[in-house]
Amino acid sequence: MQLMTDIRKKIQEQPPLVHNMTNDVVTNFSANGLYAIGAQPVMANAKEEVQEMAAQADALVINIGTLTEPQISAMVLAGQAANEAGTPVIFDPVGVGATAFRTETCERILSRVKVAAIRGNSGEIARLAGLPVVVRGVDSDAELEKPELAAKAVAEHFQTTVVMTGETDVITDGKKVITCSNGHMLQSKVTGTGCLLTAVVGAYVCKHHDVLEASACAVAFYGAAAEQAASLSEPAPGSFQVHFLDQLYLITDEDLQQRVKLQTKEEGD
Amino acid sequence: MQLMTDIRKKIQEQPPLVHNMTNDVVTNFSANGLYAIGAQPVMANAKEEVQEMAAQADALVINIGTLTEPQISAMVLAGQAANEAGTPVIFDPVGVGATAFRTETCERILSRVKVAAIRGNSGEIARLAGLPVVVRGVDSDAELEKPELAAKAVAEHFQTTVVMTGETDVITDGKKVITCSNGHMLQSKVTGTGCLLTAVVGAYVCKHHDVLEASACAVAFYGAAAEQAASLSEPAPGSFQVHFLDQLYLITDEDLQQRVKLQTKEEGD
Amino acid sequence: MQLMTDIRKKIQEQPPLVHNMTNDVVTNFSANGLYAIGAQPVMANAKEEVQEMAAQADALVINIGTLTEPQISAMVLAGQAANEAGTPVIFDPVGVGATAFRTETCERILSRVKVAAIRGNSGEIARLAGLPVVVRGVDSDAELEKPELAAKAVAEHFQTTVVMTGETDVITDGKKVITCSNGHMLQSKVTGTGCLLTAVVGAYVCKHHDVLEASACAVAFYGAAAEQAASLSEPAPGSFQVHFLDQLYLITDEDLQQRVKLQTKEEGD
Repeated sequence: MQLMTDIRKKIQEQPPLVHNMTNDVVTNFSANGLYAIGAQPVMANAKEEVQEMAAQADALVINIGTLTEPQISAMVLAGQAANEAGTPVIFDPVGVGATAFRTETCERILSRVKVAAIRGNSGEIARLAGLPVVVRGVDSDAELEKPELAAKAVAEHFQTTVVMTGETDVITDGKKVITCSNGHMLQSKVTGTGCLLTAVVGAYVCKHHDVLEASACAVAFYGAAAEQAASLSEPAPGSFQVHFLDQLYLITDEDLQQRVKLQTKEEGD
Repeated sequence: MQLMTDIRKKIQEQPPLVHNMTNDVVTNFSANGLYAIGAQPVMANAKEEVQEMAAQADALVINIGTLTEPQISAMVLAGQAANEAGTPVIFDPVGVGATAFRTETCERILSRVKVAAIRGNSGEIARLAGLPVVVRGVDSDAELEKPELAAKAVAEHFQTTVVMTGETDVITDGKKVITCSNGHMLQSKVTGTGCLLTAVVGAYVCKHHDVLEASACAVAFYGAAAEQAASLSEPAPGSFQVHFLDQLYLITDEDLQQRVKLQTKEEGD
Repeated sequence: MQLMTDIRKKIQEQPPLVHNMTNDVVTNFSANGLYAIGAQPVMANAKEEVQEMAAQADALVINIGTLTEPQISAMVLAGQAANEAGTPVIFDPVGVGATAFRTETCERILSRVKVAAIRGNSGEIARLAGLPVVVRGVDSDAELEKPELAAKAVAEHFQTTVVMTGETDVITDGKKVITCSNGHMLQSKVTGTGCLLTAVVGAYVCKHHDVLEASACAVAFYGAAAEQAASLSEPAPGSFQVHFLDQLYLITDEDLQQRVKLQTKEEGD
């Protein structure tokens, strides 16, 4: 918990510039969510400028939610520029498995860009792990017997940290596993809550050297803010969205301390 | 009214996947509105994937609000794939008549794709009917003497169901006409309320075999939720939008029963 | 103040059609904000239709927030069509200086299109003035010793009116300078508040012949509405955004009169 407090303070004191190459459904919500936590969002997608923007950013978020060919080429350019500049790249494989194009795009990006973390729902992570789950649209919750195994497999294969969100979130670098049971069901009723989390992971990861720890803090912070928002608003998605943005901005370290439910499992557990 | 209840239940029990190819002003609001009614939105626009996505979807929504050439080609591909797969296609001719490009695009799409329903405001429907109304921008309310005639003409010409929204909404398959007098003037103060209705029609149509009946239920449900939202919120567009999303999620069958104002006119009335 | 009242009345009585070519982060918020003040937004970006749309519009807003090559070409076409038709063009140089592409795009547009006004933050205006400020991302507040000088230099160089927003807003045509100290810090926590102001300037400018006066009215109106919204909402960005849209719609001339803080400085002051 002290770590979460420290990262929040660092973000607020020196707002990280988070370069988002994301889908056109969530640009506004992602930008507003990043401002709310104290970060500074920027969106840029043109091949003519993404390398320059990614290199000056503190984190690069790549999200394939409404991908197009020109955007994918630009994502690879931006990702490689980020890699060269040491800017951490966070990847959100929205709807991988739903179409061949999405699956191929993930391979194309992940084979060319080294990513610090991958954030996806259980269906997406299962597909990246090569499991034969059915993904329909972009909201796939695979009912995996051992969800941690899929997350660990993906983390190992891509040498990255995996944030797999669901009823219980799993964060793993392939060895250590941290689980988080924060969050609220209304998150699944508001578009972009997963995508914004990916961006928040970016803001946290660039402020702490240990990607696994930083990601876990981001996930728990985010889920706790959602819980607090749900407790204050009418149980409906319009109000929830407003209160959620408010709580990303307002929630105190004390409230977080009371809410956060993180659990660490060492290898072999 | 029983039919509306039945369709709502079907949507909530087995969320329809609604593939939206829509304009970039309303993607977020459309996705959130679809989640609120219990449906599952997906946005995909790339020619490389739209056929696969449309074929797996339960409904395809095509909206030309901010059309570009690549998107139009992809819309035709998606629409034809939907036709082959038996996925109903709902079409929103945003701003037809405002520019030659929009008018030509409508012809191009409607001559290649069989649409289950067309949803537009009175100016747009009048233009599709070939009437010499002036359309300026995308909010055109033609003052038609006999609005039903325009709607019926379009329905007959394109062998489809027409949902023409305005102070009184007209739903017709060219023979039967159903009118709906639900709704609230604040809807005209929030962008995308027409576009979201088009998407909601999609969610309803795929859950009931009679497109006319399903469309009428969607329109009345939507207008009643708007009325209820307006009654609960400050009479201003920011609050209204929040409450509207809430009511799309919260409104009960009982509230709907009290509010819904549908009227059926048989041919010859 | 009488002028502000007059312009508001003109907008509400005959809603100006504001053609927005803007970035995909703020399309929804811009459209909703324009509806809230009584204007009629339209978004159109395709080269096939922008000339026709710009020529029929009452104002054209060009905003390079998420520029791409096809959009830039279309912006030039639209801007030139607007110039020919006498439609005022308002330009928002989002992030100029952050990448070479943005800087070159500004030059390209400003050398081909005559703009009635440029609206930017202090970092952007300083860059347009050729000052060596560092712009990182799209939220740059340059700490200029004499901010008015930069604004005046840009106004003179491009023979236009400059609206430079910051803690104190500066509006100048290169000779006269008007300052405005309305506004609230929460505006910087909501994405698109600058972009929407640019669009509101467009709605005001097309209703009054003196661009400097109209722009000053737009800026003061906008800042006063933000203050009023902040006074009514929880001090957090989600609630603020909702109340801000409400107040753009609801605020009375009396409330404006009490809040507006405009100051005119003549040349030589």
